[in-house]
Parts: sequence; C-alpha cells; structure tokens
Amino acid sequence: MIRHLLELEELGVEGIQAILQLTDRFVEVGERAIPKVPALRGKTVANMFFEDSTRTRLSFDVAAKRLSADVLTFSASSSSLNKGESIRDSVETLEAMGINAIVVRHGSSGVPQQITRWVNEGISVINAGDGWHAHPTQGLLDAYTVCEHFRGPAGPAASLQGLHVGLVGDILHSRVARSDIQAYTALGATVTLIAPATLLPADISTWPVRVSQDLDQVLPTLDVLGLLRVQKERMVEGSIGSIREYIEEFSLTQRRVKLLSDTAVITHPGPVVRGVEVTGSVLDEYPRVLKNRQVSNGVAVRMAVLFLLLGSGAELA
Amino acid sequence: MIRHLLELEELGVEGIQAILQLTDRFVEVGERAIPKVPALRGKTVANMFFEDSTRTRLSFDVAAKRLSADVLTFSASSSSLNKGESIRDSVETLEAMGINAIVVRHGSSGVPQQITRWVNEGISVINAGDGWHAHPTQGLLDAYTVCEHFRGPAGPAASLQGLHVGLVGDILHSRVARSDIQAYTALGATVTLIAPATLLPADISTWPVRVSQDLDQVLPTLDVLGLLRVQKERMVEGSIGSIREYIEEFSLTQRRVKLLSDTAVITHPGPVVRGVEVTGSVLDEYPRVLKNRQVSNGVAVRMAVLFLLLGSGAELA
Amino acid sequence: MIRHLLELEELGVEGIQAILQLTDRFVEVGERAIPKVPALRGKTVANMFFEDSTRTRLSFDVAAKRLSADVLTFSASSSSLNKGESIRDSVETLEAMGINAIVVRHGSSGVPQQITRWVNEGISVINAGDGWHAHPTQGLLDAYTVCEHFRGPAGPAASLQGLHVGLVGDILHSRVARSDIQAYTALGATVTLIAPATLLPADISTWPVRVSQDLDQVLPTLDVLGLLRVQKERMVEGSIGSIREYIEEFSLTQRRVKLLSDTAVITHPGPVVRGVEVTGSVLDEYPRVLKNRQVSNGVAVRMAVLFLLLGSGAELA
Repeated sequence: MIRHLLELEELGVEGIQAILQLTDRFVEVGERAIPKVPALRGKTVANMFFEDSTRTRLSFDVAAKRLSADVLTFSASSSSLNKGESIRDSVETLEAMGINAIVVRHGSSGVPQQITRWVNEGISVINAGDGWHAHPTQGLLDAYTVCEHFRGPAGPAASLQGLHVGLVGDILHSRVARSDIQAYTALGATVTLIAPATLLPADISTWPVRVSQDLDQVLPTLDVLGLLRVQKERMVEGSIGSIREYIEEFSLTQRRVKLLSDTAVITHPGPVVRGVEVTGSVLDEYPRVLKNRQVSNGVAVRMAVLFLLLGSGAELA
Repeated sequence: MIRHLLELEELGVEGIQAILQLTDRFVEVGERAIPKVPALRGKTVANMFFEDSTRTRLSFDVAAKRLSADVLTFSASSSSLNKGESIRDSVETLEAMGINAIVVRHGSSGVPQQITRWVNEGISVINAGDGWHAHPTQGLLDAYTVCEHFRGPAGPAASLQGLHVGLVGDILHSRVARSDIQAYTALGATVTLIAPATLLPADISTWPVRVSQDLDQVLPTLDVLGLLRVQKERMVEGSIGSIREYIEEFSLTQRRVKLLSDTAVITHPGPVVRGVEVTGSVLDEYPRVLKNRQVSNGVAVRMAVLFLLLGSGAELA
Repeated sequence: MIRHLLELEELGVEGIQAILQLTDRFVEVGERAIPKVPALRGKTVANMFFEDSTRTRLSFDVAAKRLSADVLTFSASSSSLNKGESIRDSVETLEAMGINAIVVRHGSSGVPQQITRWVNEGISVINAGDGWHAHPTQGLLDAYTVCEHFRGPAGPAASLQGLHVGLVGDILHSRVARSDIQAYTALGATVTLIAPATLLPADISTWPVRVSQDLDQVLPTLDVLGLLRVQKERMVEGSIGSIREYIEEFSLTQRRVKLLSDTAVITHPGPVVRGVEVTGSVLDEYPRVLKNRQVSNGVAVRMAVLFLLLGSGAELA
C-alpha cells in the first residue's frame, strides 16, 4: 500500500499495472449518466499549484469531485507566500485544517518529496509536476491511453510489449518525458528519444532508451509518436540555434506525418503550441491523435490514484 | 429543443416565453428554506470567462449549485493560454474531461458561436456576453423582471404588450442593449433608444426601435427606464465630447427622475458607475429601482436555461 | 441571539463562552471519519476578501463545506470593482443572489460594520479582519486553544483565570492583538503587551493590559507567549529604527526561549516570518508551540460561528 505518489520508479511494474487496472473502473464511472461515486465523501483534497496549469489542476478537480471529495484551491499568487510564509508553514496549515491529500505542482524538482517530510501520517502527497523531474499521473495516463487504444481496457496485466514509442521535443526540460519513459518501459515498450543534442540531458547512458537525431528515419518504425511541448522561452535562451531550425528538423509537418505507419498514433500532453512541435492542420486531420482521449483518461487515472491513496476501506460503488 | 443559447433571435417568441415560464418555478425554488433541487446532479458546468465579471459569473455559479451541478472555473488569466494554447484546445480539453456545458464570456463577438463548432453533441454552449454582440441571459432576466413587476409570474404567455421601454446610455458598445431590445420587443413592448449620436450604431434603420436624443422629452412616456453602464474608458477615446457633456444631457439626475410617471420602474444591469449614468442618491431613493430584483431573477433565469439545456429527462422536484 | 460577528466586545463573556462551548462539538465533528454535518445544507456563504489571505479564507471555506453549505468566492482583484462598482453595490448583488452570510476581510477598519447597514435581515456579516480594528474569530480560536491546552474541552464555563498571557510584536497595527486582548481578558487572563513604544498605540491607558518593553524580564512569568507577525513593509516606513534592532530586543531567539517556564506555550496566528519575530529553529523545536492546533481549532471555531449565526432551527447531527 503506497501513501504518496511522487514518481513512477517507486511503484514498480505491479504498482503501475494496479493503477491502470483500477483506471478501467473509473473510465466506466465516467460514462454513467451520473458520473459520481461517494467513495471519498468527507475527504478534502488541496490543490497547491505554484505554477500555472489548466488541465492538470482542473483534471484533479474533476476527479476529486467525481469521488465526492471536497477541493480546496491554494493558489500561490493570491496566498500569504507574498507575506514571507514558507512553503512548509503553508503545508502545515493545510494539514492542521484536516485535509487528506495535497496535490502539488512546483517549478523546482523535489518539492513534493520535501513536503512528504513535513506531513504526518494520514496525508498523501501527489506530485502534479515538479521541475524537470517527474509528472507521474501524466506518465500513467499516457500509458493507459496507448494500452487502451491497442489492447482495450488495461485489465490486470496491462502491457505495451512489442510497441515502439518515440518521444520528440524538449526532453531536457521535460518532466513528462521522464515519467513517460518510466511508464512505457515498465509496461514493456521500447522508447526512442528524438531531439537535438542541445535538448537532451548531458548523460542519458543509464536511461533505458535509444536516441536519434533523425526524425524522418525513425517515424516509419513507430507505433506511438509522443509529441512534447516545446517552450519558446527556453529556445530564446539559446539552448538550440533558433526556433526555425527546430521546426525544420523536428516539427511534425504534413510531409512528415505521411511517414508514419497506417496504425501509428500521436499523443500530446497539451497545451499544444501549434506551428512549433506540430503543424496545426496535422493535429486536426490525422485520424489517430489521442490528445483528447488522454485528457479523458487523465480524469480516470487521477480518480484511481486518489482512490488508491485515500479510499482505504471505502467501497467503490 | 435547443442545445445552445447564443442569442435571443434563435429562440423566437415562444422560446423566450418558455424560458420565462420555467423561471417562475425556479423563483419559487429560490424562496424555499433549502433552495436546491437535485435536477443536474452529476453534471458539470464550466465557467470560461475571458473578461472580468462578478455578477454574471457568480450568478451562473449559484444557479448551477442550486441545481446540484458541479462547477469548474476556467479563468483565462491563470490558464495555459499564457503558454500559447488556443481557445480551441482549451475547449477540447474541457470537453474531454466530460463537462456538460460551457458558459463563456469573451471580449470578441462570435466566440461562443465559434465554440459550438468545436464541441460534439452532448455539450451546450451558453453565451454569457460576447463583445458588443449579445448577452442573452441578461435580456431574459430584464424582461422577466419587468414582466413580474407589472403582471406577476410570467406564466405561459408572458407579455409586455403596451409597455414603453427606454434604454439610455452607450448603445453602440452594449451587448446588453442588443439583447434587451430582442427580449422586450419579442414580448410586445415598444423600445426607444436614447443616446448621443456618437454612442449609437451607424445604421440602426433595421432595428425595431425608435431613437431620441432628448431624454427629458421621453422620460414622462416611459414605463421602464433601462439605464446602461457608461464606460469611461470608451469616452476617453473620444466617442463623445466629454464625460461632463454626457452627464449633462443623459445622466439620470434628481431633477430628471421627477419627470418619470408615478408607475415607471428603473432597471440597471450593474455594475453601476454612480455619478455617470445616474446620480447615486436617485438609485438609493427612487422607490421602483429593480436592480436587485434583476440580480435575484438572474439566478432563476440561469437555472431555467441550464435546466432546459442540460436537464433532459430530469424531474424538477 | 446575535446576527453578525463584528468584534468580541459585543458578545460579552457569556457570548464568548457560548461559542467556545459549541466549538467543543465541532472539534469532535472534525475527528470523525466523515467530518461533515448537514446543518447548513442549502445555505450559501460568500467569502469577500479585499486583502490576500490564505489561512483565514481557506479556514472559512473548510468550515462552511463541513457544514454542507455552498461557498461563493468574491475576490476583489478579479471583480467588477475594477469597473468602478462600489462595495455597496457588490454587497447588494450578493444579497440579491440569496446568499446567507458574508465573510469579509478588508484593509480598512469598519468596513464589516458598514456592510451590516446595507443588508437586510436574513444576512449575517462576519468580520474576518478589518484594518487594525478586529479579527474576532482569531481571538476566539486563540482563547479556545489556550483553554483546551490548560483545561481540556472548553465546556459551558470556559476560563483562563489565573493565566498570564504576553503578546509580543507589532501591537499598533495588529487587529489580532486587539481581538486577543478581548478574548483573553474576558475569560479572566492577565495580559501584558511587550513591544517597542513605536509599535504601541499612542494611548492604551484604557486597555485592560499591562505594558512592558523588557521581554527578557516578562518571559519567566508567562503561561502563554503570543507572538504576532511583524510586517517588514511597516518597519521600512520608519515606525521603528530598524528591523535589526527589533530582532535584537524582541525576537524569540534560542537564548530567550530558555527563559520561559516549563509549562509555557507559544502561539502564533501565522503566517510566520521566520527570523524576525522568532528564530525558525525555536518554532520547530520548542515542545509546546500551539500554532498548528490554532489552525485546527480555527476551523471548529468558524463552524461554531457559522452554525450559531445561520443554523437557526437546524439540528446538529
């Protein structure tokens, strides 16, 4: 029984499979006329987002409400952090109010881990993205969505054995990439990273991945093309020559999308920067873009995680 | 059966009357000790406000909660629109999370209409004000409030036949004026617009209204004096000579209010800019200012709209 | 039966004791597996915060939800106050929407009092902090927490008779100090204020307190050391020589904490400015810091206040 969700490494293959199996049940709940269950009634989930976020914050919000939990929103900008309060005091305040889980996003790697040291038993910490480090629910929902597409419901032995996943974009600064690699490889997929050398970590020799700088060559071999957001503001800092060069070599254009096999799917964690990592029309016209299904499944995955961490003893109606 | 509410033109007289009739029932719900009904339990309403708004956003919020729906707040400033995401991607994200309605306010006319093209069946779009174009729930609540004052509950055949409504203020930039004109004339009222030529659209020859620049002359003939907000920021841009000139000729002062008949009512959509469109003391002392009743009825009208669009099959307890 | 809670003076000793006694019951509710009661179902509490606040706003939010009330958040910055609307119009709007209580925080003393003059019967106003004037729920939760520590549950005759409370810090600008003095002395405690002359009001001869500038001398005599936040921004304005001087004479350092008796407790309303009013390690290591218990009890006190003001006739399950 785990108490926190900080990164996928700590779950192991069985832990990941258990969450994906539970996700099946919440996908089903989401399809009901009244997509709510009373499982977490009386529990309070605090959203503590130190970085802007639409989809992740709203997704946890919807997930908690569908489980009948209450949601507190602690937004850093309007908070007393302006008055010099430390994160620790904020966390202790939330704890003292009797909340049951803290969903935290922070620009610095390791903040969720640090928070676990400040809270007593009875509070779960869920990492909703920390710096370049990890975004575990994103990794889970991406793996779930690919599983579902190729195999149907995840079931007890979710597997991506035999699939080839390519992740394209700014790997260096991407917590999504790190969690995706964990999730995909844990379930048996082969992962290739495709990015300019300047957007790759200096040493990835220990990562269970292949690396390529030639997108055109890799595309025909992929079952899953995982696009990552490319942040212009980081480009400007000079980590690659120019945005134009990036687009020339790594953007998914109308020409390149034709190199994909007839069964390949495209994923994107959103928000999309149209015209940078992908041509807008590709996203709109390609028949197997899983972007929106990822969002749907994101709610179910987060319900599964919240239920697993907070629902001890509760019946899942 | 309508699916979206974008502007009142599409409802027709019967459609408007049907909503006003339904509003009667939600006015009654609002007077109960526990003013809640379970009609929309399990439904999620997303508020998507790209412009600041207190009363409209809160009004939809209260309306949704009284119907037992969950409410998601997507606020543009804290959203990933900062990261370059298009409105379309945001809408698709909300849709993928399984929400049932989008209540949208945007500074540009036509955005709600555009959103309807991006969502699949099963999602309703409600215009909460778009540019200068329309603010249909405001038109409905204004008409309902006037009906209620002069006739009692709207009932199946709500009518304003025989009443004379004057709308005073910045007609040119006012979506409220456009929706008010639709609602009032659909129910049989005569409407006169009173404004300086610079605050009137260039061509209103096709509008079903009379026009006057002489407020003093029109006041004694009115049953309803509809004040509109005058936005100083637009004045500065030179659309009229000066704010002082406007006040001199069109502000509802203590002198002018005496020209109204003994039964005339004053409406204002709020927020009021005291000292511009109206002298503060007039608002506080005149016995038939319907401003607060408009707000109360606004909740009931929005409950009626949400119920009509989302409540298919639900019993209204 | 009181209708508003503006300051503790209006409650009297019996009123304060009645709230503390009721708080006992909500502390018990907070310890249940499902810490919710249906007492205020269908009621709506509007949070109207014109100043940033984390803990007070969230505390009222949690308290209202545990009573099954709905919560509206009116945040000043995103509101139509930007469009020139007066506070009065905002209050009247909330009232017209059918809310039952306004929880208000404002930088100017007297705003909650003023709001009571604008609302009709059926709406309660709760002061969540106004200028330097009062913060009554903070005074109540501080007194409750000290009671609980020394005596156990407050019960019908809560008393602090015989205890010596020292309040240290910026008394001049502190609404917390004013409400603490009311609460502590009403229950029979002796209160000593310890601050530089520049951070004391000009004339406190009528206050039921002693005053000292010598923290070291007072510390051994205290049962309760009440730290107050010291706001750097006010220091810069010159009200005391320099922040360094303040720290030298009034900060609770590792040396000074040793002067406290073996049973003395430390309170702090939060947020703490570590290194100013207290050395961080003191807060972490001293065994009887009640800071977090104050936060927990804050939720229960606010449930008691909301129930008392809004729950007429409701059963407390």
